[in-house]
Amino acid sequence: MYQIDLNCDLGESFGRYTLGLDEQVIPLITSANVACGYHASDPIVMERTVRLAKEAGIRVGAHPGYPDLQGFGRRNMDVSPAEAKAYTMYQLGALDAFCKAKGVKMQHVKPHGAMYNMAGKDYALAKGIAEAIYEYDKDLIVMALASGQLVQAAKDVGLRVAREYFTDRAYEPDSSLVNRRKEGAMITDENEAIERAIRMIKEHKVRAVDGTDIELHAESVCVHGDGAKALEFVNKIRSAFQAEGIRICSLAELL
Amino acid sequence: MYQIDLNCDLGESFGRYTLGLDEQVIPLITSANVACGYHASDPIVMERTVRLAKEAGIRVGAHPGYPDLQGFGRRNMDVSPAEAKAYTMYQLGALDAFCKAKGVKMQHVKPHGAMYNMAGKDYALAKGIAEAIYEYDKDLIVMALASGQLVQAAKDVGLRVAREYFTDRAYEPDSSLVNRRKEGAMITDENEAIERAIRMIKEHKVRAVDGTDIELHAESVCVHGDGAKALEFVNKIRSAFQAEGIRICSLAELL
Amino acid sequence: MYQIDLNCDLGESFGRYTLGLDEQVIPLITSANVACGYHASDPIVMERTVRLAKEAGIRVGAHPGYPDLQGFGRRNMDVSPAEAKAYTMYQLGALDAFCKAKGVKMQHVKPHGAMYNMAGKDYALAKGIAEAIYEYDKDLIVMALASGQLVQAAKDVGLRVAREYFTDRAYEPDSSLVNRRKEGAMITDENEAIERAIRMIKEHKVRAVDGTDIELHAESVCVHGDGAKALEFVNKIRSAFQAEGIRICSLAELL
Amino acid sequence: MYQIDLNCDLGESFGRYTLGLDEQVIPLITSANVACGYHASDPIVMERTVRLAKEAGIRVGAHPGYPDLQGFGRRNMDVSPAEAKAYTMYQLGALDAFCKAKGVKMQHVKPHGAMYNMAGKDYALAKGIAEAIYEYDKDLIVMALASGQLVQAAKDVGLRVAREYFTDRAYEPDSSLVNRRKEGAMITDENEAIERAIRMIKEHKVRAVDGTDIELHAESVCVHGDGAKALEFVNKIRSAFQAEGIRICSLAELL
Repeated sequence: MYQIDLNCDLGESFGRYTLGLDEQVIPLITSANVACGYHASDPIVMERTVRLAKEAGIRVGAHPGYPDLQGFGRRNMDVSPAEAKAYTMYQLGALDAFCKAKGVKMQHVKPHGAMYNMAGKDYALAKGIAEAIYEYDKDLIVMALASGQLVQAAKDVGLRVAREYFTDRAYEPDSSLVNRRKEGAMITDENEAIERAIRMIKEHKVRAVDGTDIELHAESVCVHGDGAKALEFVNKIRSAFQAEGIRICSLAELL
Repeated sequence: MYQIDLNCDLGESFGRYTLGLDEQVIPLITSANVACGYHASDPIVMERTVRLAKEAGIRVGAHPGYPDLQGFGRRNMDVSPAEAKAYTMYQLGALDAFCKAKGVKMQHVKPHGAMYNMAGKDYALAKGIAEAIYEYDKDLIVMALASGQLVQAAKDVGLRVAREYFTDRAYEPDSSLVNRRKEGAMITDENEAIERAIRMIKEHKVRAVDGTDIELHAESVCVHGDGAKALEFVNKIRSAFQAEGIRICSLAELL
Repeated sequence: MYQIDLNCDLGESFGRYTLGLDEQVIPLITSANVACGYHASDPIVMERTVRLAKEAGIRVGAHPGYPDLQGFGRRNMDVSPAEAKAYTMYQLGALDAFCKAKGVKMQHVKPHGAMYNMAGKDYALAKGIAEAIYEYDKDLIVMALASGQLVQAAKDVGLRVAREYFTDRAYEPDSSLVNRRKEGAMITDENEAIERAIRMIKEHKVRAVDGTDIELHAESVCVHGDGAKALEFVNKIRSAFQAEGIRICSLAELL
Repeated sequence: MYQIDLNCDLGESFGRYTLGLDEQVIPLITSANVACGYHASDPIVMERTVRLAKEAGIRVGAHPGYPDLQGFGRRNMDVSPAEAKAYTMYQLGALDAFCKAKGVKMQHVKPHGAMYNMAGKDYALAKGIAEAIYEYDKDLIVMALASGQLVQAAKDVGLRVAREYFTDRAYEPDSSLVNRRKEGAMITDENEAIERAIRMIKEHKVRAVDGTDIELHAESVCVHGDGAKALEFVNKIRSAFQAEGIRICSLAELL
């Protein structure tokens, strides 16, 4: 049987600022990546987000980022492995406090933005992040770019890994994502995006940007909840998966 | 037998900024109140502080504060009980992550600065803080001003309380601290400060600022580690306590 | 001839977070209060906001606030007069840099949120803020609550003052605003709000919450730009003013 | 006649945190680079630092940095040229407010830490910074690494430049600084450091790390004020310069 997890970045509002249609996307996904106050969110938002996820019965993961609120954690920063480890530890604990208080078991950890991208390419940085997760709770699942260094680092320290697939991104022949600045980096046709995702799930194959087929395994597909169009796409991909006999379930069930 | 805990605010360095003689004061105390990144500290400092406390065999507590780095958490802020609850939850979890990773059991929670003072006077605020602590871990001990509202709120939610005594402060007849702006608010003579502390421990009596004797019970005495003079005083009060047969031990043993 | 300034708080977006329909409300007002990075905004947003105001030909003022991004500057903080002075100085200069670079002369200063409210009641605090403005540029106009302490402090240091009227708020017999938590604090009927504003402009009279008439003089009316409904109201009040022969013009022309 | 400016980074304290022996080093230098609240400092510290510089009769410059208080602005960040321009504009204005209020004319701008290093290598970034300075006040002098991209960018936009020499650093044959991680990067012998500085001033020659002589012109020498040893060195280098007939004077006089 084919199975897949649907994950989404959530809880990114901050103080007076609202971001994302969290209440509407939560019932449509299986794993919520919840921001932890470094690149976005605050304790009031974190409490609400964990509560909403619990009420909907979906799984909660930490979504730690760089301390760059002004840049939404999307700017590369020359953070050392020791700093990345300590920042991850801090944010894991902070989010888990709200989980513990509500009797929710934290399922996974997915770094955000620049931390995610840099950990995909820099093994030492990825190792620091993986060590923090392992030392905090060795049952946590690491969610990472299918072909990146964080997958390796997580395995090396002894953690389970969920590889992530992006429906809206093109892939290089070496399985990395095509840089956003390059032409053809984004898959803008929704039907094409869905067909590609289904093929990846069933055949573990993706047509790379150069036209060759590459092998790709992923346990989770990333979707977005930041607008009406994004929500519509989530509904569409859910229907398509169901029509194709692909069961949508959380990582905790999958792995 | 007479017993007392010695607590000290620690881990208040931040990035490039160093504050406090942590390494030197840690071996002299029994309970460390560790800053959690809101009014002071950062994840690198938190990791180091918990490590130092563990190596010295002393107990670790969280020292949450208001989100006011520029004001060191010392400025009153009109934070709602729900915000105070969420801020406390966040900081408890963040510090506990470093404790968990090192196999250290967090012993207590002592709010910092303006949060401490306001929670001593405002029951609703104190209740928010106490609820966060209880929901996070009902075995945690709340450290609070001997006569304040947080003692009451902590008991009301079902938590154990350690009442705190200040050697360098004068008391009002109603057991509250004399406002720092009033004359006579500070006990500047070290010998007098030590004699008063010993009397409080042995007789549960303190001479108030108006000359009357008040009854005061406390399980912990607050000391400072922010300078050579402060360290000297800690050594002096330790010797005096030992000479008087007062055992210095952690709250976990005391309560 | 009757004249009035229409002011609006603007430029409150921050990084990835968007707030307010700035581009749509700017052509409808005469004075923009531009956030300065303490309670909201960032340098990229400030540059854009000053540019938009310049292109529309409206006047720019600084809208300094407390350093409380998480609370949007709306929480009272126990900031000393010296701190309020330094915070105001810093933010005035920061915003004025973008004005200078674009050849825009800064017209006024209106404190934000908790700083505005506290300066309305606390003369020492208001004095600190007024001194910063005077020392920075004695030609700046202070925009303040019609009946508050900042009006007095600004006059005392030698600054010109624009008194502000709130169309959506009820007034106490002493000309202060009715506390938002009290019943009847908000004027929710738009037509009533507009009629009250017109009467204030023409007769300098406002019906207070207790039914008595009070005298009130104001040079500026505060409007909002944070939603479609708010924009509609601005259009409505503009039409009503024009129909009543009230000219809408900037403070620089008015005073 | 030989002339040189002595510059020092100052005003880097923050809230409760003190850094640097500002009061002691100020009388020994001619140009103060004053932090602006992004990588260090706060408005209270800025007011005090400008006041101290004015009282000592030395020149004031802005020392803008990246928004990274936790990393003291020393970590490379992937900031765009437009962001660097806006951040520089913001900080220039903020510091200048305190100068204006005290009747002090701001003399120069020297970027801090990672912003300084990155602007030395990345022309587009350097151009953004230089444009902000030019648009703010075209009389400002840019202080930059003798051989770096910011020197070029500043000249290209039409600004005057003061090239900076580091006494404690070794140089590569291409006039760039030897990376701190390489052996021999630091000149640790004080006498050697002083002799090298004198030779650079008199002969415009520096012995590079590979033993060859390179040509180097600089108008300012960077000294430190963060400890007793640093202060001693400043006194030593001042005496040596005077003995060699090198006049120590501000950039404003030099250029």
